[in-house]
Amino acid sequence: MAGKRLVDVSELAVALQTFANERDWHQYHSPKNLAMALTGEVGELVELFQWLTEEQSMAVAQDERTARAVRDELADVLVYLVRLSDVLGVDLNQAVSDKLAANSLKYPKGDSTPKRS
Amino acid sequence: MAGKRLVDVSELAVALQTFANERDWHQYHSPKNLAMALTGEVGELVELFQWLTEEQSMAVAQDERTARAVRDELADVLVYLVRLSDVLGVDLNQAVSDKLAANSLKYPKGDSTPKRS
Amino acid sequence: MAGKRLVDVSELAVALQTFANERDWHQYHSPKNLAMALTGEVGELVELFQWLTEEQSMAVAQDERTARAVRDELADVLVYLVRLSDVLGVDLNQAVSDKLAANSLKYPKGDSTPKRS
Amino acid sequence: MAGKRLVDVSELAVALQTFANERDWHQYHSPKNLAMALTGEVGELVELFQWLTEEQSMAVAQDERTARAVRDELADVLVYLVRLSDVLGVDLNQAVSDKLAANSLKYPKGDSTPKRS
Repeated sequence: MAGKRLVDVSELAVALQTFANERDWHQYHSPKNLAMALTGEVGELVELFQWLTEEQSMAVAQDERTARAVRDELADVLVYLVRLSDVLGVDLNQAVSDKLAANSLKYPKGDSTPKRS
Repeated sequence: MAGKRLVDVSELAVALQTFANERDWHQYHSPKNLAMALTGEVGELVELFQWLTEEQSMAVAQDERTARAVRDELADVLVYLVRLSDVLGVDLNQAVSDKLAANSLKYPKGDSTPKRS
Repeated sequence: MAGKRLVDVSELAVALQTFANERDWHQYHSPKNLAMALTGEVGELVELFQWLTEEQSMAVAQDERTARAVRDELADVLVYLVRLSDVLGVDLNQAVSDKLAANSLKYPKGDSTPKRS
Repeated sequence: MAGKRLVDVSELAVALQTFANERDWHQYHSPKNLAMALTGEVGELVELFQWLTEEQSMAVAQDERTARAVRDELADVLVYLVRLSDVLGVDLNQAVSDKLAANSLKYPKGDSTPKRS
């Protein structure tokens, strides 16, 4: 994967810094608090899926009753993940590149046992 | 924000598709299951912060006892978030752009009450 | 701890069975789904604490703006935990007795390192 | 439900107080931290279910590969829920009684739409 960026979240990180600055939210944005906020958003995302069958869950982003909500919750999770990484000084692209390399060794091709991290 | 991509996760999405293909993991990767896996990873991330003060939490990515773990967990969260969005057919860049626009209206500049989404 | 019940949740388990019966909810109450619902409720609980300092968090149940919400969320978590245990056929009193016995060995008295389970 | 206790967790609450006292853990047990710890335990519980079908999830407590783990994780969730409620001064029996009464009004008998809290 040399030379290829798996993800680029730099513009979002900057936008979120600006957003926080303009609202004096830095006082709240400790990594501990942001990790909690991330949890809360994932909880809201999960609630969209909890009573659906796996098959029904495939259509959540197409169903007009849930499409907007699922997009919003995915966005919220991304927002807090990028903000948390930024505050911690973690380069998400590097972190995910390293993790995928480790996963390639841990889960050899052809092994169909699901990943447990 | 016209014309600017806040995030680009397309290479990671492709890498994860390939990874799943090579291990026959598509059978497990329903949105419902991926939402659960995302939850599990966020739980592991939160465990790194739970007994720390907010101030201590600032140093998690520098402390050699936790630096690797926090990078790995942030990466795992991103992996499942991107995989889930991809399986659902949600464009994360568009979703987060729309959400930030909505947040700008919901939280006017200068309002220092923290976001509750 | 021989002879002492640490918890008794039997009446709640029965009440929840009846509640589910009367609404034909058994179709939704697989362990997988209930584990997701539990996650969602914990997410709502965490949101009450995310922007508070540890000290502020002490007063959440006394503050009239959050007292009702925190009681409701704690109750919701208990409801899904008891329902999930009941559907799985797990005796929570026995499970928690065994776990505390194991924790006593794992965390000797006087060891002030916090529990990581 | 007058006169009937839905749950009695008082012995567990006392046992956990003693356990924390003997290890000087009170310094860590702010409600904020305990809410995070609860999240972490729920994450570990969810990981047991994430790749299972709903039908497979029914057997988790009988399958010898997962029976111990699921009992332990359910116990851990209960431990932190009871500890958190105790530190907050919330009477879980009263809270759950009130919540079920509210749910009875919110979800009339015969309404088979699943609860979203």
